[in-house]
Amino acid sequence: MLILCRPELFLPKWKVVKKMDNLFKLPKFLTDEEVIEALIPDQGVLIERIISTGQSSPENFWYDQERDEWVVLLQGKARLVWKDGRSKELIPGDWVFIPAHEHHRVDWTSTHPPCVWLAVHGRLQ
Amino acid sequence: MLILCRPELFLPKWKVVKKMDNLFKLPKFLTDEEVIEALIPDQGVLIERIISTGQSSPENFWYDQERDEWVVLLQGKARLVWKDGRSKELIPGDWVFIPAHEHHRVDWTSTHPPCVWLAVHGRLQ
Repeated sequence: MLILCRPELFLPKWKVVKKMDNLFKLPKFLTDEEVIEALIPDQGVLIERIISTGQSSPENFWYDQERDEWVVLLQGKARLVWKDGRSKELIPGDWVFIPAHEHHRVDWTSTHPPCVWLAVHGRLQ
Repeated sequence: MLILCRPELFLPKWKVVKKMDNLFKLPKFLTDEEVIEALIPDQGVLIERIISTGQSSPENFWYDQERDEWVVLLQGKARLVWKDGRSKELIPGDWVFIPAHEHHRVDWTSTHPPCVWLAVHGRLQ
């Protein structure tokens, strides 16, 4: 029974697998932390929802991910920046493909409304 | 140059890879056909946008897919039905995981507004 209640304790590959079944249904209370939820267990392909409320990557921090990422902003506004100088302002529906090890950071996210992201991580190319 | 213009002619694994970079940006003219667009080349994981405008699966037709599917409805309304008797009415944001070979069909999709689906096909479990 515990496995059903707290799968993340027993299945480390799951980040947090919630029963949330609607991407636009937000937690009642949002704190200063981003909310990251794996939507299915990560068996090589991770599908996750991320809620950002103003968070951004630290100055001079760059994501350098092992896996490719396909990510779409579904709500809110945001700005991504790449180490090679590119940047992209995102509005709802905008999607981006970020190959593994392509250095990037989240430069800005809106607070009102919160940003809802959907990301797919895996070997995608 | 042709490769850039019509990648689907040369890369059969791509269904149709469009330069569309916003999921909510719909074609100017929608016909009676569903519009299915691969968002990145299919190298084992297929990410596609589907626009439905009232289409549904034929009566007694069941999808029996080789790969798992994670699918979310982002706009419109729809109803999925499974061979085992389950059904689900979908509103924007609702997502569903459909394991490979789980027989299902699209029972109904809204025309106004058109349905915008995002589907991820692959070995997801």
